[in-house]
Amino acid sequence: MKLYFSPTSPYVRKVTVLALETGLDGKIERLPATTSPVEPNATIQRANPLIKVPTLETDSGETLFDSRVICEYLDSLHQGPKFFPASGAARWTALRLQALADGLLDAALLLRYEGFVRPEEKRWPAWQEGQLRKIRGVLAEIEKQAPGFGERVDIGTVAVACALGYLDFRYADMNWRKDHPQTAAWAAKFFERPALKATIPG
Amino acid sequence: MKLYFSPTSPYVRKVTVLALETGLDGKIERLPATTSPVEPNATIQRANPLIKVPTLETDSGETLFDSRVICEYLDSLHQGPKFFPASGAARWTALRLQALADGLLDAALLLRYEGFVRPEEKRWPAWQEGQLRKIRGVLAEIEKQAPGFGERVDIGTVAVACALGYLDFRYADMNWRKDHPQTAAWAAKFFERPALKATIPG
Repeated sequence: MKLYFSPTSPYVRKVTVLALETGLDGKIERLPATTSPVEPNATIQRANPLIKVPTLETDSGETLFDSRVICEYLDSLHQGPKFFPASGAARWTALRLQALADGLLDAALLLRYEGFVRPEEKRWPAWQEGQLRKIRGVLAEIEKQAPGFGERVDIGTVAVACALGYLDFRYADMNWRKDHPQTAAWAAKFFERPALKATIPG
Repeated sequence: MKLYFSPTSPYVRKVTVLALETGLDGKIERLPATTSPVEPNATIQRANPLIKVPTLETDSGETLFDSRVICEYLDSLHQGPKFFPASGAARWTALRLQALADGLLDAALLLRYEGFVRPEEKRWPAWQEGQLRKIRGVLAEIEKQAPGFGERVDIGTVAVACALGYLDFRYADMNWRKDHPQTAAWAAKFFERPALKATIPG
């Protein structure tokens, strides 16, 4: 398999963490590729008209995206404990948590384009505040849920870890740990997993 | 179940189409709710920190989002033909197609916020062009795939129909049918399904 890959993309990190956790990492060739809405990468564009990473080319030549689809696909290729619970309440809990974490990331990425990529005179404070509101709301919700995470290692908790790691990487001055001690305690432990340690963005 | 609902949201339409197609619609109470990043709806915010529709409250009091999670949840509640193939190539084909259509919608929504909601002097042509590039790319990819859609009715083709319907609704002057005759022929037939006819945005 081939993975279009950027070391700073938190969605790529989700995929790479899953690949490492499931022992599939050695079967994935990484094709470095950086892209953005205003500087599209032509190679990725040929594989994925959304021009986004991660994009996976499978061994049978199919192209898969986005990160949720790739992660679930990888999870179907191994025989170990599954990151996507097959059915029932555990599945909806994991998928909702992934959606929550991905939603934080969507907001954080839009905030970054707004505050660092868009020309300064074209930035719109109300838009930035709107994205920050989502980030703060998700952090508050995760803080409520964190005491119940326990030893859960599934696509939901992996996505949360990647979202928090992205805040550390791009918004360290947000200092999310300060007001979210339960989340911080959980993350301190989860970040010790080798797959997380091997994928710190930078 | 209760669904936070906006009649103009294409992601809500996906959920409503699925509810109608699977016979679950009568079990869903709709709570009208309009929201945007710059005008957040406080009621939705209490249910979903991402402050987005669709958001579903299940009969057991769980809250589910986003549209992909809600659609798959609804698909687990009925005994008819499944919209999410259980496994194998059919599943990845359907999920990839859903991701493609959702990606078009993400770009179309960002384009709309940029061109109609953001103050005029703060609009950035390169950003608009970047989103249009994605929309055009997805339309070209759908045009390639459309001859193979046949009679497929799954979450992929439903998502494509909702994406095309959104372009009709908000970007009629884009006239996507002109350069995408295969897609237009497929859509003309798919739009005749009662679930699609019952959910035309406006």
